[in-house]
Amino acid sequence: MNENDPTAAVIVIGNEILSGKIADTNSNFLARELRALGVSLERILVVPDCIETIAEAVADFSGKFDFVFTSGGVGPTHDDVTIAGVARGLGVPVVRHPILERQIRQYGAGSADEARLKMADVPEGAELVFGEELAFPVLKVRNIFILPGVPELFRAKFQALRQRFASAPFFLRAVYVRVPETAMVPYLNATLDAFPSLLLGSYPKWNDPEYQVRVTLESKDASYLERAFAHLLDQIPPEFVVRTE
Amino acid sequence: MNENDPTAAVIVIGNEILSGKIADTNSNFLARELRALGVSLERILVVPDCIETIAEAVADFSGKFDFVFTSGGVGPTHDDVTIAGVARGLGVPVVRHPILERQIRQYGAGSADEARLKMADVPEGAELVFGEELAFPVLKVRNIFILPGVPELFRAKFQALRQRFASAPFFLRAVYVRVPETAMVPYLNATLDAFPSLLLGSYPKWNDPEYQVRVTLESKDASYLERAFAHLLDQIPPEFVVRTE
Repeated sequence: MNENDPTAAVIVIGNEILSGKIADTNSNFLARELRALGVSLERILVVPDCIETIAEAVADFSGKFDFVFTSGGVGPTHDDVTIAGVARGLGVPVVRHPILERQIRQYGAGSADEARLKMADVPEGAELVFGEELAFPVLKVRNIFILPGVPELFRAKFQALRQRFASAPFFLRAVYVRVPETAMVPYLNATLDAFPSLLLGSYPKWNDPEYQVRVTLESKDASYLERAFAHLLDQIPPEFVVRTE
Repeated sequence: MNENDPTAAVIVIGNEILSGKIADTNSNFLARELRALGVSLERILVVPDCIETIAEAVADFSGKFDFVFTSGGVGPTHDDVTIAGVARGLGVPVVRHPILERQIRQYGAGSADEARLKMADVPEGAELVFGEELAFPVLKVRNIFILPGVPELFRAKFQALRQRFASAPFFLRAVYVRVPETAMVPYLNATLDAFPSLLLGSYPKWNDPEYQVRVTLESKDASYLERAFAHLLDQIPPEFVVRTE
């Protein structure tokens, strides 16, 4: 990525992921979305349902990156401690938000109990981000966006935020070769020497009858990418190449 | 988990995961394996192919947790910098390991080039862990196990290490209910008050015709778990329960 690209990190909160009971799919979704938006995702961190650990991660990442997303830990149960963790990380108290409280009471037809009202608690200074498709707004505190862990809700809420992260997209090319990665190293290094800003990836595939390595080239500059792509193809022995994209 | 359980963290290295091109499956595999072995996985961290960032994570985690695993960044290409990152994190130089060098030269029938020989480089002080099923040993430096990112290799190498992490396993019970999570909160809290060492999880399922929440109960003490399970079932209105496991 370029040095000027906005940066991001995601903190995934949940013992269920660390114990392997649930596989985290939200961070891969977010990685693909941010990539398409031109935002450089720099860290994915999964932490337990522990206020102090969440607080440390929030304090660290919110200072280092432009945007921080949290996933999970925002429900009504005993192990939902994300709000408390974010608040402690920012050094602010947890307060009950009057708009959320009213929304929860309306939704519950007046019968909201304390468990449900817990979902109206926010770190002091939180903004509510409303979206057309959302029953309930997204919480934003400084540069932190607090998203739920349930994948359908995580995605719906991110979609409501999406446009505020739009920047320049990446262009992508790929070369599939029928030789091992080690045979490609000199050509990859030569291309990198000639095109130092190129993002070059090399992904071996095991037991695939079609190809052995997928080489990816990426840049935000379409013409730079095409020149680097041509440079690489010029060098590789043609019999190595299965196909290109 | 209990306070006496051994702890672990995994550092997943790879721009391809942060850019969303590849979904990380190794950390979920490791989470499940460690859980079955009685090891408490405390962090999953995904970082870019950057020596300094890997070094920081290694220095932090190797001091905090009993075992640290790395995934990825150990091939022959320009972006494989895990060995350099681990070495810097531990404050030791990178050295060529004579046994690995000999193995690589034998494998390549004497034709090993520099790219391939890079895979004989290790942080000084590294041990080689051999396994019956392994073509190439696992690298271990202090409490850090360096594993490859290709899922088939990651799994094969972990299997060769598996027995050294064996500790007491967890027992698991589950209750599926047809009511929202908020309706379960008082029963969950009462059970936790009576069984404070219980690991209690609550996982809402969206748009499932069968149930709304899966509640999990876990303990290493089978009899404690059965008493907590009975306690919870005693309190929940029977019409809430879809089924138990």
